[in-house]
Amino acid sequence: MSADKPSILIVGAGAIGSFYGAILKRAGCAVSVVLRSEYEAVVENGILIESDLGDLSYRPDHVYRDGDTPESTPDYLILCVKVLPGVDRAELIRPWMGDNTRIVLIENGLDIERAIADAFPANPIVSCLAFIAVSRVGPGQVHHKAYGRLVMGRYPEGIDDNARDLADLFIEGGIKIDLTEQVVGERWRKCLWNTPFNPLSVLAGGADTATILDTEGGEDLIRTMTEEVLAVAEADGYPMSADLIDKNIAGTRKMPPYKNSMALDHINGRPIELDAVLGNVVAIADQHGVAVPHLKTMLVALRMREKLKAAEGQ
Amino acid sequence: MSADKPSILIVGAGAIGSFYGAILKRAGCAVSVVLRSEYEAVVENGILIESDLGDLSYRPDHVYRDGDTPESTPDYLILCVKVLPGVDRAELIRPWMGDNTRIVLIENGLDIERAIADAFPANPIVSCLAFIAVSRVGPGQVHHKAYGRLVMGRYPEGIDDNARDLADLFIEGGIKIDLTEQVVGERWRKCLWNTPFNPLSVLAGGADTATILDTEGGEDLIRTMTEEVLAVAEADGYPMSADLIDKNIAGTRKMPPYKNSMALDHINGRPIELDAVLGNVVAIADQHGVAVPHLKTMLVALRMREKLKAAEGQ
Repeated sequence: MSADKPSILIVGAGAIGSFYGAILKRAGCAVSVVLRSEYEAVVENGILIESDLGDLSYRPDHVYRDGDTPESTPDYLILCVKVLPGVDRAELIRPWMGDNTRIVLIENGLDIERAIADAFPANPIVSCLAFIAVSRVGPGQVHHKAYGRLVMGRYPEGIDDNARDLADLFIEGGIKIDLTEQVVGERWRKCLWNTPFNPLSVLAGGADTATILDTEGGEDLIRTMTEEVLAVAEADGYPMSADLIDKNIAGTRKMPPYKNSMALDHINGRPIELDAVLGNVVAIADQHGVAVPHLKTMLVALRMREKLKAAEGQ
Repeated sequence: MSADKPSILIVGAGAIGSFYGAILKRAGCAVSVVLRSEYEAVVENGILIESDLGDLSYRPDHVYRDGDTPESTPDYLILCVKVLPGVDRAELIRPWMGDNTRIVLIENGLDIERAIADAFPANPIVSCLAFIAVSRVGPGQVHHKAYGRLVMGRYPEGIDDNARDLADLFIEGGIKIDLTEQVVGERWRKCLWNTPFNPLSVLAGGADTATILDTEGGEDLIRTMTEEVLAVAEADGYPMSADLIDKNIAGTRKMPPYKNSMALDHINGRPIELDAVLGNVVAIADQHGVAVPHLKTMLVALRMREKLKAAEGQ
């Protein structure tokens, strides 16, 4: 690695964090990680990544454990944890933050930057959406199946040198980057699919796309919910073409039946990113006085389900 | 038993059918039953019912098996099966119907009489709502825990001699009867609680009343769904006071946390009476052009869930 390359710290080095760390390692950066349960495995073996891009396995420059004191603060801190109730992401990264640390979010959902921006108003934020198929196959072991493109920009808008420099490193490491002036708009666009499909698949007990669309009333419900998301996005300053509804349905029907990541989380008993994908959309709808009865029904029913699951877990 | 008492045939002698058969047996009627899986047990031991009303156990006058040919047709045929997709209730009772057989429905839900009335237009129908806590504890064994009142009337409306005579027999057998001129209105009134609470408890994974009402947004969602039911009932010719919404919520909060029968069916892997409790309400809303977005979201999500469950059962 070269001294003029920025230093990277990945907080939450699951499948996604481990993968993008590998890409930046290939670009010549010093890449360290903060881990919780996989600490021992990674100290011993490094991070093992099987990928069509080649062997992306690497030994992080430092392997920290949650609660450690850092030897130095990074140029870029990349946060890749799930956005869940009870997880205070700002507190999670606070110990690792320097005055000049830029925060990079590679996380799902809408309005997930706000809590971080409020907690660290002086640190620039680069917000990223990952289009990738990658999964954890064991402690410190990741299988990268396909894709890897990042859509990224400065939060709340624009493209600054922080985003541009990071984009160049990712490109050097071998993945495709789309810089965007309106990363929040891109998040809305991703919500157009995720906000109806992901929670509905959970509510239906872990249904795939074909079950959702082919149930009596299913496609209509998806269309109506997508219209609700469109209306909220427009009220929030991010209008999109209504043609996208037809395109989303047609695109989904073209794919083989597919269980989205939230459905898989549900099936595997993991918590779901309900607020990031749905709750924040409904909250913004309420702020703007946009009626979203279908989304709200789904949100409240899923809140009940998560509450029941938490109570039964006790 | 006395020769001037009408003969009774119970089709679907589960917990509810067995109990009301016992009541009519106490009133001196000849009571026969048609059974499927519990045939052997009932032939051997009769029907065993533990109850605060005393020992209600009895040997039916005839024990038929589904598919048998009847020796005679009954004066009253009491149908107590669940209203489920794939169960053609008219076909189920057809072999047992005589020209003068009156049909008695002791079943949950709304608009569940129509299929029977269409199939047997010349036979009078007595429609009943049961307010009872009773459960099957083994083959041919029933535990009657509390209540037993029936609200009953001629379908589609009025009170005729068939309803009155049957009511007298039930009263003679020891239970409370409320005759009603508007049994469909009474079904709407029961739906005011059941239509929001029952399906929502299933959607939430088997939640009790406290979990439903105390989740963020839960009471509001119940209120909104109850308003939707009120609007459909009014469009259907059965206006009710909006005060009932507050009364339902307050009454529910006064009870200990409670899992309704649909939640228990769901938890125990049994099919749920989705159309009787919710689907028929939404269908009537559509006929009248009443918007019910919250109910419809719940219905479609539950249809997906039932479809997935059926597919996984294959």
